[in-house]
Amino acid sequence: MGKAGLPVSPLAPAGFPDLPVIDGVQFASGAAGVKYQGRTDVTLIRIAPGSTLAGAFTKSSTRAACILDNQAKLAQGGDAPDGAAIIVNSGNANAFTGARGQESVDAVTGAVAQATGVPADRVFSSSTGVIGEPLPHDRIIAIVDELAASLDAGGIADAARAIMTTDTFPKGASAVVAGEGGEIRIAGIAKGSGMIAPDMATMLVYVFTDAAIASPLLQQALSSGLDSTFNAITVDSDTSTSDALVLAATGRSAAAPITSLDGGAGAAFVTALHGVMRDLAQLVVRDGEGATKFVEVQVTGAASDADAHKVAMAIANSPLVKTAIAGEDANWGRIVAAVGKSGAKADRDRLTIRFGDMVLAENGWRSPSYDEDKASAYMKRQDLVIAVDLGVGQGARTVWTCDLTHGYIDINADYRS
Amino acid sequence: MGKAGLPVSPLAPAGFPDLPVIDGVQFASGAAGVKYQGRTDVTLIRIAPGSTLAGAFTKSSTRAACILDNQAKLAQGGDAPDGAAIIVNSGNANAFTGARGQESVDAVTGAVAQATGVPADRVFSSSTGVIGEPLPHDRIIAIVDELAASLDAGGIADAARAIMTTDTFPKGASAVVAGEGGEIRIAGIAKGSGMIAPDMATMLVYVFTDAAIASPLLQQALSSGLDSTFNAITVDSDTSTSDALVLAATGRSAAAPITSLDGGAGAAFVTALHGVMRDLAQLVVRDGEGATKFVEVQVTGAASDADAHKVAMAIANSPLVKTAIAGEDANWGRIVAAVGKSGAKADRDRLTIRFGDMVLAENGWRSPSYDEDKASAYMKRQDLVIAVDLGVGQGARTVWTCDLTHGYIDINADYRS
Repeated sequence: MGKAGLPVSPLAPAGFPDLPVIDGVQFASGAAGVKYQGRTDVTLIRIAPGSTLAGAFTKSSTRAACILDNQAKLAQGGDAPDGAAIIVNSGNANAFTGARGQESVDAVTGAVAQATGVPADRVFSSSTGVIGEPLPHDRIIAIVDELAASLDAGGIADAARAIMTTDTFPKGASAVVAGEGGEIRIAGIAKGSGMIAPDMATMLVYVFTDAAIASPLLQQALSSGLDSTFNAITVDSDTSTSDALVLAATGRSAAAPITSLDGGAGAAFVTALHGVMRDLAQLVVRDGEGATKFVEVQVTGAASDADAHKVAMAIANSPLVKTAIAGEDANWGRIVAAVGKSGAKADRDRLTIRFGDMVLAENGWRSPSYDEDKASAYMKRQDLVIAVDLGVGQGARTVWTCDLTHGYIDINADYRS
Repeated sequence: MGKAGLPVSPLAPAGFPDLPVIDGVQFASGAAGVKYQGRTDVTLIRIAPGSTLAGAFTKSSTRAACILDNQAKLAQGGDAPDGAAIIVNSGNANAFTGARGQESVDAVTGAVAQATGVPADRVFSSSTGVIGEPLPHDRIIAIVDELAASLDAGGIADAARAIMTTDTFPKGASAVVAGEGGEIRIAGIAKGSGMIAPDMATMLVYVFTDAAIASPLLQQALSSGLDSTFNAITVDSDTSTSDALVLAATGRSAAAPITSLDGGAGAAFVTALHGVMRDLAQLVVRDGEGATKFVEVQVTGAASDADAHKVAMAIANSPLVKTAIAGEDANWGRIVAAVGKSGAKADRDRLTIRFGDMVLAENGWRSPSYDEDKASAYMKRQDLVIAVDLGVGQGARTVWTCDLTHGYIDINADYRS
């Protein structure tokens, strides 16, 4: 069972992966009783002096106090000559809590600064859970010293569990890439999926590497991967107030510093980083509330990449497409309608729709090769690929989503009460 | 039970209203067996010579052949000196049927022209139902002569039933407005709701009046009402390939012709017409698939009307808001998140959220007057009002939606198969 008493998603991997230790990053998790009882709900992460940092945050106009605080701190620059720290709690989002929200952030990050010796402006925080209720920050502060005393380089799996809300499994991914003169390691953890988790529980992602890389380059490596990873997933089209991704690079690898992302070890690092981000993003979809199918939506032949994104998201967010998938119905007509409503340039008679290798529709009509039995058999798979070629240009985009089932309604119709 | 064997929506009105006869408009409905058996599925509507016409159609880029045909015909002008006709079938949408789609439209409208003496370029058509399958237009043509022989001014209620697909009740609305020297009558019927009905069954709307009014003015009267009526409803955010609204004015009223919409009888006509359009639009929401709650979302204080629309639709389409309503949970935090994701200008600390008369949130936090018991009691009502004031400008918009329930999943996860 997952933390909220939900059965583990049928799309979950067999277990939590064996993540490489990132030299210079330590974790400690504990139970503060913010909301949940009998489980860990706070994680402290300590990042060594000399590290560099990068981040990406929700664009919501109602973002939480911790998001505003993190953004202000990162705007000062991504260097951490005296180290950095991240404190995360689950059970309360500290969102829409007015001026008290910032007071809670200041109190918690101040306590972490004192306990770890990290400057307060390098202490970042995330809160995830119920919205609009004051954060009982004293409960968190009460265990900060204990956490600081138990920091451990091997604690990443426990951290992945402590940040869960209604997630049904902990999420981790990693990569090892050949640098110049040594290996570079990347390890990351994530929770949630967009706003799949009820009551503003959010997507939180923390990625660590031992690469030596200046913070502007680190930010560039991160930012260039967002559109094809976290901005390419959706469970229910709802955007949270608290989405956050923090990337820290400790520079402890034996490999030479990365000074360019164009070619060589720099390009390999970017590819590996984006792979870890994509793995984590897909794990988030695999834990989509009520999900029973994992769906890749590939759009090609669009007038632009932006148009391809519009079409892919229109399909991936369509309740009619998602319920058809839940019902294992090869209802490609609903995909035609989703393309039509997307606002992207499209021509009915140039559209081709494939499920896996099967062509279902082409030249403005059902394909002559369409076989209802084969299509129905395909829909029984757990992992599906829907491919749409618009035939009007070179734009392309792939996104990932899940189906819409009774489980989603069960979880969301009465989570809070 | 509705036509598709579904129980009648709990939000349905007590019965079909007593619509006024519109002089110059006749109806005939019959059973062609397009898909359904044992029910009427084709309606023929004859509009008298000298009438004027206006229309509004889906903006989908994958729109059906009949939509393209109707648009081309109306682009020639809205006058019908020799009369007009409308033929509607349910059971097959004739959408995404390639070149055969237009062939079917030509065959059916040609047969209607021959049977009624109406010029072919004044014969409009709509098809609603399954997509991507060839329309068996011979079945429709086979009963056209019979329909033409049985046209009757009192047949509007039967027409409202014949155009249903998975609708659970027929939808009609009317108004009588004082013209200069006599009454002007307006009567309309509708089916579906956006793309609530599965497999591209669509929203179709036909409105008739005996007003004497030139077609450009008639089109203006229609177009000016769309944003506050049919463009202000959503069930599931999916847009159909076949949405169509046709408005016909016969000029048979004793009232003087309407020559201006600014003041006097012209303004009264516009108000009444928009009232009929709003009534029909709301009935469509009340038949939303699986709906158990009818929800009015009022947004005020936005930077512009367009921003207000964005926020209202973000709330009305949010699966998390809609499932909370289904669960009778006063989960206003999900409304905060929907405002945040909308892309409209918003300021967390100026936001006010009301459910009915209750203020739930203001000044960036839960209202001091918030009473969980009262809020929960309010949520048990069948008709709800969610009001959001953004506090940043004068823009306003009201939209209507329904909740998202297990019934929606039931209907859409396996309708086609």
